[in-house]
Amino acid sequence: MAETAEQSKSALKKAQKEANKAAEKAAKAAKMQAKQTLPSVGGKKSEDIMGITAKKTEDFATWYQEVVLKAELVEYYTEISGFFIMRPATMYIWNVIRKWFTEHIEEMGVEETNFPMFLSQKSLEKEKDHVEGFAPELAWVTKAGDKNLEVPVAVRPTSEAVMYPYYSKWIRSHRDLPLRLNQWNSVVRWEAKQTTPFLRAREFLWQEGHTAHLTEKLAGEEVLEILELYAGVYEQLLAVPVVRGKKTENEKFAGGYYTTTVEGYIPSNGRGIQGATSHCLGQNFSKMFDITVEDPAEKGKHIHVWQNSWGLSTRVIGVMVMIHGDDKGLVLPPRIAKTQCIIIPVGITAKTTPEEKTKHFEQLAEIKATLKKAGIRTEDDQREGYTPAWKFNDWELKGVPLRIEFGPKDAAKEVVSFARRDTGEKGTIPIAELTTKVPELLSTIQADMYKKAEKSFDEHRVVIEDWAEVVPALNARNVVLIPFCLDGKCEDKIKELTTGQHDENPDTSVPQAPSMGMKSLCIPFKQPKEVAQGTKCLNPECERSAQQYVMFGRSY
Amino acid sequence: MAETAEQSKSALKKAQKEANKAAEKAAKAAKMQAKQTLPSVGGKKSEDIMGITAKKTEDFATWYQEVVLKAELVEYYTEISGFFIMRPATMYIWNVIRKWFTEHIEEMGVEETNFPMFLSQKSLEKEKDHVEGFAPELAWVTKAGDKNLEVPVAVRPTSEAVMYPYYSKWIRSHRDLPLRLNQWNSVVRWEAKQTTPFLRAREFLWQEGHTAHLTEKLAGEEVLEILELYAGVYEQLLAVPVVRGKKTENEKFAGGYYTTTVEGYIPSNGRGIQGATSHCLGQNFSKMFDITVEDPAEKGKHIHVWQNSWGLSTRVIGVMVMIHGDDKGLVLPPRIAKTQCIIIPVGITAKTTPEEKTKHFEQLAEIKATLKKAGIRTEDDQREGYTPAWKFNDWELKGVPLRIEFGPKDAAKEVVSFARRDTGEKGTIPIAELTTKVPELLSTIQADMYKKAEKSFDEHRVVIEDWAEVVPALNARNVVLIPFCLDGKCEDKIKELTTGQHDENPDTSVPQAPSMGMKSLCIPFKQPKEVAQGTKCLNPECERSAQQYVMFGRSY
Repeated sequence: MAETAEQSKSALKKAQKEANKAAEKAAKAAKMQAKQTLPSVGGKKSEDIMGITAKKTEDFATWYQEVVLKAELVEYYTEISGFFIMRPATMYIWNVIRKWFTEHIEEMGVEETNFPMFLSQKSLEKEKDHVEGFAPELAWVTKAGDKNLEVPVAVRPTSEAVMYPYYSKWIRSHRDLPLRLNQWNSVVRWEAKQTTPFLRAREFLWQEGHTAHLTEKLAGEEVLEILELYAGVYEQLLAVPVVRGKKTENEKFAGGYYTTTVEGYIPSNGRGIQGATSHCLGQNFSKMFDITVEDPAEKGKHIHVWQNSWGLSTRVIGVMVMIHGDDKGLVLPPRIAKTQCIIIPVGITAKTTPEEKTKHFEQLAEIKATLKKAGIRTEDDQREGYTPAWKFNDWELKGVPLRIEFGPKDAAKEVVSFARRDTGEKGTIPIAELTTKVPELLSTIQADMYKKAEKSFDEHRVVIEDWAEVVPALNARNVVLIPFCLDGKCEDKIKELTTGQHDENPDTSVPQAPSMGMKSLCIPFKQPKEVAQGTKCLNPECERSAQQYVMFGRSY
Repeated sequence: MAETAEQSKSALKKAQKEANKAAEKAAKAAKMQAKQTLPSVGGKKSEDIMGITAKKTEDFATWYQEVVLKAELVEYYTEISGFFIMRPATMYIWNVIRKWFTEHIEEMGVEETNFPMFLSQKSLEKEKDHVEGFAPELAWVTKAGDKNLEVPVAVRPTSEAVMYPYYSKWIRSHRDLPLRLNQWNSVVRWEAKQTTPFLRAREFLWQEGHTAHLTEKLAGEEVLEILELYAGVYEQLLAVPVVRGKKTENEKFAGGYYTTTVEGYIPSNGRGIQGATSHCLGQNFSKMFDITVEDPAEKGKHIHVWQNSWGLSTRVIGVMVMIHGDDKGLVLPPRIAKTQCIIIPVGITAKTTPEEKTKHFEQLAEIKATLKKAGIRTEDDQREGYTPAWKFNDWELKGVPLRIEFGPKDAAKEVVSFARRDTGEKGTIPIAELTTKVPELLSTIQADMYKKAEKSFDEHRVVIEDWAEVVPALNARNVVLIPFCLDGKCEDKIKELTTGQHDENPDTSVPQAPSMGMKSLCIPFKQPKEVAQGTKCLNPECERSAQQYVMFGRSY
């Protein structure tokens, strides 16, 4: 977000107030977490002990915290507040995304790099808006061992200022363009605001791409190509619909030229959420960092290169959890699920003879092998001392898309029974058809999850042309598309005018006093309609003409 | 390295002295780098301008710096000293290693995780030796934005103290064992010593595995299994031979129980170099962090778990460069080369007609496609304005294992000409046999590179049983295997006794005054022979019996 120095200060003050509230929240969260530690083995036979206690529709914030903790996606790093541990269930998803995205950008000619995590004050200060945007959140290393550093260094909040002195060095000729580098790393932004797993943390994992081009046109093409990949991560992998658009001036990247974004929507509280951003930096940084090439069309003339930067973070996982999860826990889209199919033996009783049992488990092993051979990520759960019902709950909590139950009755009919995690739908599949029917079913689950989320977003993205309808629409969990003049001050005013209105369904995960104003999410590329001649900006205090429909909403 | 507080202090003082020297060196290196920036395009036709100017045999340190810079593996991060930028050529190699290692540890059941980069003082201080070992090199964050933190936090130098509070939380029962987690990250150790690309940097990339087991035996088995994978990275991927062994008490990991290691050897200066280490931490950390389970064999009895940690860093790439590189630049083993085979068109002259040229380049494209289809990572160099000889130099500098030249004369004979990067050997391959002969040739290159390095290490690992022969052996670029009592003080004495002796071939990359003493590298698992009855420790001032042959040497 680009901010003036004054805005930064006021934001900081506000943030400090919020930090106090945040501290209380954190203490509460820690208490909650303490309660949620797993019971000892002796208790694991009980069927209700591990489940999610909060209802998604009643207390969304608590529900979310429970899901990410109990599904073992994250752990709070209680040693230092605002930090989270990414557990294997998270890293699996992140690695699927990483692999998919890497393959696509490699095809585009982007190469991987790794720059140091520290930033010098001198480099940071080169771009004025950039330093103002990030300065309040910088973590400063001032000591090494027991000695003070002569010059403190900051942990990177993003790497423009780390990298671009070297772009200046490496780019000598237009033949060195495009220069396209990407790194997978973590960055630190010491937020004063309340942190939330995945969505807002003081350290987060991301990729950051930094490229340089000869012309605005080439840079602009890449910005959109990357944005489409970000949309692909959400839509194709995570089954989450997004709206592609451009940020307003108020919301663009600090120091950039323009910012494109994919924006998501959380149905439970009607909030918008920024998904990932692809920035055109224009020539701002190349002028400050002196990155030039000789114009290939005009000898002796030097051109400042056109630069982009683009990033996608682990936030994507939080959005996915919020959208698909339910009161039983996580619901994972098959494409990113480490375990796509869990096989649970059922119907084995005290009366089952050892021979029958052996034979049954041999059949089960065969089913598992068949599915694995067909490329389905399949596990079975043969843990002793747990009832099938307990196991059902456990795997539902963890979000496994498809459960297969296999008992003597199934065996007799040469079928398996299945249950879909997303809909709860049950049925049977002939064993002979496993290799075709299971992949089909997983594809259906992936598609249905997307469709459901898309329907919800479509229904809650409403065009509003009467100011009086704005807040009721927000309260009904919508984001709104309003005719807007695109002026930054008008945007601030709209936020102010919508702040403090009664919210029927407060989300307690973010401090709000007493309800959150709306801000601009993006100017959608796909406009709902043309702005009619003579349409005024919707802000009742604004006299300007509307330029475009802009998506506003309460947001994360 | 485990150190007492006193040793740490003395080491710190010494390091500070060395830092002054290091600063001078760094200034020199920066100057050198400035000279090495690529010439503008106009100059690229010259054939000698890009090569390595230092000779490997004459000025090894300068040679190494030139190679890693000019082959575009790294760039010095001149903003903050002691940091390096890993360029795409490095990241490619690192990712090959990452993929190979990940596949192997996944088979073992190790899962990926990601913990925060910051460490609280409280956690760090739990294990006394551990904190003493790392405290002098910790980078402390004391400020966020313009506010001082209430409690400063350190950037992790390694993650034992970051992770183990959560191991205590997550491990509730022996059923939770083994717990095996690994992360790929960077760590910061603010070294006062002279830094060298890959070998010693203030921030470096690595993987760190942290596991917990029920018994010493299970932990010990894993330690060796991982060590064998580390040996595999060196031997199978990087074509670098290593000696497997155990560290002495002086050299083991701070706070650990015992440390196993793979040790390499740099023929050019006869130094040993630690390759990667796999530690058994014993129960030291589990006692301090309270990680216990109930003994499955005895109800009510609690056992502290047995822990391991193991790490492999980008240092491996530096070792590979030092061993295989030559006066023309980098020499890459085919298995880790991004480009295994570079095709360069030759014999196209002013007399070649456009039709002939088109036809020739079509044939070349076919050859490239054939090789790519056979799984060979192949590129061609059709850059205009560069002579074939300039291109040869350029790709040799970058270490590409196999060059294929293709000219009209080759076409007439239906062959391609080739040149091996490692030996310079030239020959031809019938086009019809490309898909079998090229993979064979690459395998041969990989094997020959290993054999050559192995021969050198074997010839320079000498058993010495007469103290008078030790320093001459070191001066002749050997590491030595000596009968040793295993006492820590005796080890210090040996270092002292061998320091300051005249070194005929000083390596100026590491400060030494006037020549470096030898330290223990490892106790090789494969002993050269049994220690004969009555053999005394080789230290002339030691009266104890020798326990084992220990490998000592000057080292990095």
